[in-house]
Amino acid sequence: MNIIIAGAGAMGSRFGLMLHQAKNNVILVDGWQEHIDCINQEGLKANFNGEEIVEKIPVYHQNEVSNIEFSADLVILFTKAMQLDNMLQEIKSMIGQNTKVLCLLNGIGHEDVIKKYVPLSNIILGNTMWTAGLEGPGKAKLFGNGSIDLQNLGEDGKGAAEEVIACLNEAKLNAKYSDNILSSIYKKACVNGTMNGLCTILDSNMAGFGETNVADDIVKSIVAEFAAVAAVEKAELNIDEVLTQIKSCYNRETIGLHHPSMYQDLIINNRLTEIDYINGAIVRKGKQYNIETPYCLFLTQLIHAKEQILGAK
Amino acid sequence: MNIIIAGAGAMGSRFGLMLHQAKNNVILVDGWQEHIDCINQEGLKANFNGEEIVEKIPVYHQNEVSNIEFSADLVILFTKAMQLDNMLQEIKSMIGQNTKVLCLLNGIGHEDVIKKYVPLSNIILGNTMWTAGLEGPGKAKLFGNGSIDLQNLGEDGKGAAEEVIACLNEAKLNAKYSDNILSSIYKKACVNGTMNGLCTILDSNMAGFGETNVADDIVKSIVAEFAAVAAVEKAELNIDEVLTQIKSCYNRETIGLHHPSMYQDLIINNRLTEIDYINGAIVRKGKQYNIETPYCLFLTQLIHAKEQILGAK
Repeated sequence: MNIIIAGAGAMGSRFGLMLHQAKNNVILVDGWQEHIDCINQEGLKANFNGEEIVEKIPVYHQNEVSNIEFSADLVILFTKAMQLDNMLQEIKSMIGQNTKVLCLLNGIGHEDVIKKYVPLSNIILGNTMWTAGLEGPGKAKLFGNGSIDLQNLGEDGKGAAEEVIACLNEAKLNAKYSDNILSSIYKKACVNGTMNGLCTILDSNMAGFGETNVADDIVKSIVAEFAAVAAVEKAELNIDEVLTQIKSCYNRETIGLHHPSMYQDLIINNRLTEIDYINGAIVRKGKQYNIETPYCLFLTQLIHAKEQILGAK
Repeated sequence: MNIIIAGAGAMGSRFGLMLHQAKNNVILVDGWQEHIDCINQEGLKANFNGEEIVEKIPVYHQNEVSNIEFSADLVILFTKAMQLDNMLQEIKSMIGQNTKVLCLLNGIGHEDVIKKYVPLSNIILGNTMWTAGLEGPGKAKLFGNGSIDLQNLGEDGKGAAEEVIACLNEAKLNAKYSDNILSSIYKKACVNGTMNGLCTILDSNMAGFGETNVADDIVKSIVAEFAAVAAVEKAELNIDEVLTQIKSCYNRETIGLHHPSMYQDLIINNRLTEIDYINGAIVRKGKQYNIETPYCLFLTQLIHAKEQILGAK
């Protein structure tokens, strides 16, 4: 397949590498010049489950792809949420009538952006358990195993996703069809919608927050807002299950001493956050559905205040 | 008059000094041993509008006053909010049938604590514009001018407060009767209920917060909760006036670069905050009056989380 990895950070690098190794015709598109230069000069490197590998994969800056002759069968979206619209704008000449677009971004409501460029029948929403890290420009660190759940938003449903699933599975990416992808997406968003914003605003790791005597009440209030919005979209959430998953983040023996990604973005790297696509998305949808979402709104506002106070970019 | 200053920090020291200088029989009661020792050994010192003064005023630790023979005509309460109940418990043997109790604490709802010890007819609520600082134990810094508004909660009203007003005015403390003290208290609480919690949780000075593009929306949401609760208690708030006063805190030319007192307490001095008596009081009263107060609740929870994460005491 002709595949565009749109956003070739840590996760995009993993998918690009594995799909390239499975003999697909992969190109990477990204906006980080230093990363692009390294991949161009020395190939995409990775420590792949302990083995050092290098693969020559074409890579382009997203500002320079509008004239490239490449007819994509599949686009996999892995940008930061706020970069999605711009990325689709840049690559739209490579998206044809039959190009499937698989969205694996964190957060909620990306289909509202994608459908400006792609018919619903070609949009596939996914949720992945794969992980990945970058050691530096051009160098990924890829350990462990994962999987992908995905669902086509068109009337064809499963039929329209079959080729994509087969392609991902040839690359050992463990994809399977889901009739209920929104529930998985909302469930993951609940974890991000609590841990990310709260640990960032409190300048705390997950255990530090989770061990306070207000953690339960705060988390329940936020999850209730997510669940109310999700219910309107027929994405039922098992709240006990969600709360249990959130509590597992507090465990000091596993991931409790880590800071979530938003903390890394804002507090460590002084970058703007994805809050508008997590809690902020619940606020927008809440307005649309006439559901009160004060906790998501206040948390979104506080994170934006913090971004501005720190001069994040 | 026989006067107990219950809580002899910065403001208590100002009132104690000025009332002592006006020939009242003042005693100070406090819980900070080093401060008490300094006052006992060298007198209460102050830089009083540029002049260095010292006054010998009796001072007692609040744990040691239960056996003192002192029949108070007036008690002026200046403790931290969370210390109020305990202080009243300690000094209650000095409070008689005719002792007036003037409460000048920041925050809301202290009358609910005081009325456990004192009949309503003897409770006087006040709001003061005086300021004061401590340079260290036993040494106050007292600059500028101020005033006090006060109101008696009993049926006698003004009549029951006249002697107290006269006494305060002999000491040049500029007291006057108000028929609407709750409105002033709520107005001041709105300033504290926004600047204190928000600057503390955002680790920001007042200008830094005020200049963000979310400041207005956050402040309006919080003030609306205060106003809804105040309205039930017939304390009308002029919301535009309150918002204007809050915005004046953002001015970099005046106080905008300062951190509010709660920031000093928690972030600088690692002490527990008074949030339960500001935003937390609105939450309690909101429950009682069936008014939703999600912003005050979430802010109160976040401050408590921060206290616990920092191990404040």
